[in-house]
Amino acid sequence: MLLPADSGFEGPFPDLTRRLRLGVIGAGRIAKTQAQAARLTDRWELVAGVLSSDAGKSSARAAEWRLPEERCYGSVPEMLAGEAAREDGIDAVIIASPNDQHFAAASACLAANMDLLCEKPLTNKLDEAEQLEKTASDNGQVFGVCYVMSCFAMIRQAREIVQSGGIGRINQIHVEFMQDWMTPEDAGEAAHIKWRLDPKISGPTSCTGDIATHAAHLASFVSGLKMTGLRADMHICGAPKQLEDTVFMTTAYEQDVPGTLMATRLAPGNRGGLRLRIFGSEGGVEWDLEHSEYLKWARFGEPDRILSRGQGHGIAPPVERLVRTGRGFPEGLIEAWANLYTEFALAIAARRDGRQIPDGWLALPLVADGADGVRFIEAAVRSHNRGGVWETL
Amino acid sequence: MLLPADSGFEGPFPDLTRRLRLGVIGAGRIAKTQAQAARLTDRWELVAGVLSSDAGKSSARAAEWRLPEERCYGSVPEMLAGEAAREDGIDAVIIASPNDQHFAAASACLAANMDLLCEKPLTNKLDEAEQLEKTASDNGQVFGVCYVMSCFAMIRQAREIVQSGGIGRINQIHVEFMQDWMTPEDAGEAAHIKWRLDPKISGPTSCTGDIATHAAHLASFVSGLKMTGLRADMHICGAPKQLEDTVFMTTAYEQDVPGTLMATRLAPGNRGGLRLRIFGSEGGVEWDLEHSEYLKWARFGEPDRILSRGQGHGIAPPVERLVRTGRGFPEGLIEAWANLYTEFALAIAARRDGRQIPDGWLALPLVADGADGVRFIEAAVRSHNRGGVWETL
Amino acid sequence: MLLPADSGFEGPFPDLTRRLRLGVIGAGRIAKTQAQAARLTDRWELVAGVLSSDAGKSSARAAEWRLPEERCYGSVPEMLAGEAAREDGIDAVIIASPNDQHFAAASACLAANMDLLCEKPLTNKLDEAEQLEKTASDNGQVFGVCYVMSCFAMIRQAREIVQSGGIGRINQIHVEFMQDWMTPEDAGEAAHIKWRLDPKISGPTSCTGDIATHAAHLASFVSGLKMTGLRADMHICGAPKQLEDTVFMTTAYEQDVPGTLMATRLAPGNRGGLRLRIFGSEGGVEWDLEHSEYLKWARFGEPDRILSRGQGHGIAPPVERLVRTGRGFPEGLIEAWANLYTEFALAIAARRDGRQIPDGWLALPLVADGADGVRFIEAAVRSHNRGGVWETL
Amino acid sequence: MLLPADSGFEGPFPDLTRRLRLGVIGAGRIAKTQAQAARLTDRWELVAGVLSSDAGKSSARAAEWRLPEERCYGSVPEMLAGEAAREDGIDAVIIASPNDQHFAAASACLAANMDLLCEKPLTNKLDEAEQLEKTASDNGQVFGVCYVMSCFAMIRQAREIVQSGGIGRINQIHVEFMQDWMTPEDAGEAAHIKWRLDPKISGPTSCTGDIATHAAHLASFVSGLKMTGLRADMHICGAPKQLEDTVFMTTAYEQDVPGTLMATRLAPGNRGGLRLRIFGSEGGVEWDLEHSEYLKWARFGEPDRILSRGQGHGIAPPVERLVRTGRGFPEGLIEAWANLYTEFALAIAARRDGRQIPDGWLALPLVADGADGVRFIEAAVRSHNRGGVWETL
Repeated sequence: MLLPADSGFEGPFPDLTRRLRLGVIGAGRIAKTQAQAARLTDRWELVAGVLSSDAGKSSARAAEWRLPEERCYGSVPEMLAGEAAREDGIDAVIIASPNDQHFAAASACLAANMDLLCEKPLTNKLDEAEQLEKTASDNGQVFGVCYVMSCFAMIRQAREIVQSGGIGRINQIHVEFMQDWMTPEDAGEAAHIKWRLDPKISGPTSCTGDIATHAAHLASFVSGLKMTGLRADMHICGAPKQLEDTVFMTTAYEQDVPGTLMATRLAPGNRGGLRLRIFGSEGGVEWDLEHSEYLKWARFGEPDRILSRGQGHGIAPPVERLVRTGRGFPEGLIEAWANLYTEFALAIAARRDGRQIPDGWLALPLVADGADGVRFIEAAVRSHNRGGVWETL
Repeated sequence: MLLPADSGFEGPFPDLTRRLRLGVIGAGRIAKTQAQAARLTDRWELVAGVLSSDAGKSSARAAEWRLPEERCYGSVPEMLAGEAAREDGIDAVIIASPNDQHFAAASACLAANMDLLCEKPLTNKLDEAEQLEKTASDNGQVFGVCYVMSCFAMIRQAREIVQSGGIGRINQIHVEFMQDWMTPEDAGEAAHIKWRLDPKISGPTSCTGDIATHAAHLASFVSGLKMTGLRADMHICGAPKQLEDTVFMTTAYEQDVPGTLMATRLAPGNRGGLRLRIFGSEGGVEWDLEHSEYLKWARFGEPDRILSRGQGHGIAPPVERLVRTGRGFPEGLIEAWANLYTEFALAIAARRDGRQIPDGWLALPLVADGADGVRFIEAAVRSHNRGGVWETL
Repeated sequence: MLLPADSGFEGPFPDLTRRLRLGVIGAGRIAKTQAQAARLTDRWELVAGVLSSDAGKSSARAAEWRLPEERCYGSVPEMLAGEAAREDGIDAVIIASPNDQHFAAASACLAANMDLLCEKPLTNKLDEAEQLEKTASDNGQVFGVCYVMSCFAMIRQAREIVQSGGIGRINQIHVEFMQDWMTPEDAGEAAHIKWRLDPKISGPTSCTGDIATHAAHLASFVSGLKMTGLRADMHICGAPKQLEDTVFMTTAYEQDVPGTLMATRLAPGNRGGLRLRIFGSEGGVEWDLEHSEYLKWARFGEPDRILSRGQGHGIAPPVERLVRTGRGFPEGLIEAWANLYTEFALAIAARRDGRQIPDGWLALPLVADGADGVRFIEAAVRSHNRGGVWETL
Repeated sequence: MLLPADSGFEGPFPDLTRRLRLGVIGAGRIAKTQAQAARLTDRWELVAGVLSSDAGKSSARAAEWRLPEERCYGSVPEMLAGEAAREDGIDAVIIASPNDQHFAAASACLAANMDLLCEKPLTNKLDEAEQLEKTASDNGQVFGVCYVMSCFAMIRQAREIVQSGGIGRINQIHVEFMQDWMTPEDAGEAAHIKWRLDPKISGPTSCTGDIATHAAHLASFVSGLKMTGLRADMHICGAPKQLEDTVFMTTAYEQDVPGTLMATRLAPGNRGGLRLRIFGSEGGVEWDLEHSEYLKWARFGEPDRILSRGQGHGIAPPVERLVRTGRGFPEGLIEAWANLYTEFALAIAARRDGRQIPDGWLALPLVADGADGVRFIEAAVRSHNRGGVWETL
């Protein structure tokens, strides 16, 4: 039993009776951020990893990651086998390796009945994504996908407002992700960047699959509406490269709601420029990752309202549960990741104990969201290749 | 001689030797704002008008506008004739009546060799706009068009930065105009609004010709690049109506620069949400009408810079000339209109005196910009009607 | 009769039946800004002035100001006499000359039964201020004082909120005016600045009487509470000079409300940094001149509210009357001055017609406020000279 | 050896060869935040604690904190003894119990040669603080004090700018800490608040020792100037209570730099309103905890500059070392705490290994800063009690 028998999920989050053990696949910047977040939650111990297929590198990284060398494996199957053989083996896996490795790694985890979390884009091909979705569903495994932006407290609050009618009937959805790090001509040549521009590894897109997909997920997550169609123009605005660095779309969502979506890595002055705006018949919500602690909620005919992470002042109970530091004492991206890891832990515990998680407790993005992301990417590619025609998802 | 013989345009703006006399066509809110701005400049006296074709209304409005009744005419031709017969007759006309009246009024002014300023959209049909453009050009008349947003000091500064290479090679242009006043279901029924939704008066579009055209002008004005193509989707997001209240576009400019443009009157929380962002190979500029005194100028690899209206700190000389109040003591929309009226007065004076205006002194939008605006509107209509296909301008 | 007989003050502001005629004393930057604002209102004509005591200068300035030379006088008494002799003589005077000239000029106007508006500080000595206050009161003359910051729409809204209980019982008042223009070592040497640092002209203080007094007036204007005591430390933070460039105070207001007040011209990055914060038992209001269109209104336990100039969304009727351009289309300092000039015109018209102005229509700062300002300055000087001891006002 | 022999402190931070073991004294909100931050760094394991002197509570909290019951002690001496007896005993202690317990706990740690971190205020009496300072200095122990606000990356950047001459000669220092949580009349009655208003526990002040002391430390930390004098007025602005909820000061720093400092818990609309402004002869810096990722740096005569946490764009190397997530992807308070815990770990490791830490690597607030904080509090009390007279520190 991972969950205390009588918890009833009291408290900010239910107390699991022990820390879950995590294995990491990948050793890049994102993997490190996730490890920090997992530790922050106090619900996880990072105990094993596939840090490199090269034995020398793996060994060096073991020290860097403070992992015992014997639990730093050369491949995913080795890790799954090695850990399965231990009494204190891992409870779950995080896949944070480049895009082209997601499918094989996730398939192996599913086959090993291992709960997992996978970076986006879920896969580079839709049929792979659908296969993962089906398998996970058949097995009942917990399969989270790292749409971490949906784990900011103020995004959760926006979702509560929008889905409880706080802006009336939705009539427009705008979302964008504007960054600037690829501005220098040689930005694409850095080792940790290069693969993102190589179709063999990154898949059919670069900017679209890397950041536009965050924007698309956020739009649906907050609005509660699936994207149904899009028109996409991809551009290489900066130095020549194999894949797009910029994409502009017009979009449609369920209930015939129109919108726009764009993403670029060439917008100097923008770094974490993920911005969401949803307008409705009575009001609107606006959020900006660079000022993630604040949410603008306008109701027509009233003063604009600024909500901030913290308790009181109309913050919904499921969002209050996410609070670590008091209102006005900022949390940030690592805390959003920690929210994701807390929900991941809770989902695993509930599955193991065969218990039902009460409504409103989990909003963790799952494999189905990951598959939707791949559908979005593929539709964008089709639209662009056909000259910007309308494509349905 | 209107200009002092030896002025050489010294000083913040050349001193004209007498105030110019203005006749107004229209009596709505915009006409009133323009009258305030004209007075503010001290270069204009409002002395005559066509305030209504109804004699009773005209008389009442004469009092309200503090105009002598005998100079409040029942029609444009009457005003032009009446004023021509006076020694102290008007020097110029401002056309601020509904869209469908622009062409006839402007044509009459041109025929009477009267300098004029006309609200946007210039006309409801392109051939009319082109005819006005040709006549004004043949006659050498001053024919300004009210793209007033280009007259904010910080927009002028953005133009100086962008066109002098301050952001490198332009690679993206994004512009939007987001308002919320049409959010209530019955917003379109107010008397002063109704005509904006009537195709007979407003022309083929409502939101596009009213506000998206401001955004399009601003994009070209600051970037120095003409729009060459677009894809448009028009929407009625709010209550049913005959014309669109919302429009989303992807755009292209000279030198193959891609962009986006959108406009809506249904974005609660946005009132003067005219926002311009131009990104280039070395930096970017961002401006928002609601915070019109500030300009963000980012250069990659440096701290973001915030410039504000006022002297010093790198403000270009043509922009310093626009300053009325010190840095940090806000100016606003009426002052932007006043900048337009000052330039209009200067252009008239230069024409009358047969003098050349030095480079960099005038950036007043002219009839050619107005015609470009009508081309933009018609291309948007064509694109939308054909399902969002690409249309060249 | 200046007011229409049946107006009942309908409309945004009552229509006066003719423009009032204004004479200006002084020709500096502030005088020019006021002239622009007066014209903007369409309730005033600037027709006469004392632009210089030097005949040559006066003549040159007459042209610059577009005033007939014969109405540009060499002294205040000459203007008052000359204009009194004309049928179309001036209705009122604005005193915008250096501080040391205010008393004589104002006294002469009062003696001539001329309504007037005077720059702050009202006088350089309290007994002079009190004498002016008494005379104006005895005569029933309109004697406004240029505390223009109180004429911003959002300051009026703050006042409505605070004085109608919108923040509960007031318990703290903080106000500051931070500028940076005196940062350069030689800033004090510019001709138009020099007098501000000369005790013979500027009076016993420089920064205190020039800008801290704005802050003090604003605090009382919005809170409805008079300042009752203060402790002041004056500093010369920049280049050596005869008078202070910086002042820090702790303050007290009626009902034992404590507060702070500070002002400096040496705060790089601050230009129009006049900021007001009032906190109470249920909420608070905050305003910043550099973002004058916005007002933050917090109520404890609710989202913060952002109000903006314009109609609807809870703006009080007396504030809606001040609106010229729509919400989100910025107004600025000149419009605040225009609000002051409109109220000045209205007060004069009401006096001439012997009519009562309805409650809530006028909030024009008057001579009594000017005298309070001099009391504030003198108390600050006393406190500073005694080493920062508490002084009552 | 805790530090790798050849590290030379390469990398973002030197890799310690093992995690340090931490014991916690106190179990409140701050203790929990610190535990999260310690875990985040991956340099610490929380292994023991004094969570309550009540055995039952201690046991319950052991589970909540995931600590083995046998390492949850009933008192500080018991923990120090118990852990000293273990091979895997704690390396350091964090004291996060109420103010009145700091001295005894810290004294016991010093006596046990245990490195420690203590919450502010260091003690409730100055002689106690000085005794701790002397003992720690004699022993060479690492004794950090929790002025965590100095550990935000942008505060470190402000310090680099100011202390390298980036604003010229400092001439004003303003700092404030404005909160609103004590606004409700009954706010002081909550269990976790009550002690903060009880002089027996909280010491001679409440608001001053709790939050004004953060402001005072920050001012000196960034400016490099010690506070030399102050004038203080303490107020009870809200419900009656034994200790002040609000304090206003004028201050002086070394080199005769004047300033202001204020703090309150009754400023609705302010939560984490810790704001620092330092102005100098060439420029200024401004920072606000609620927007902790941004730093405004103005240089007179240039556009204002906005710096943000992250690499490049002029961020100083010691500040770049603090970066966890990319520019624009927010970090927050827990990351600031983690910076403090990383520096604490590094200081301990260097001490144990007998190695010198290179200049610029550590800015951890130490016991001397804690003693300065107590001097500040006592001077404020003296000043207030004598009616706001000037007190030197």
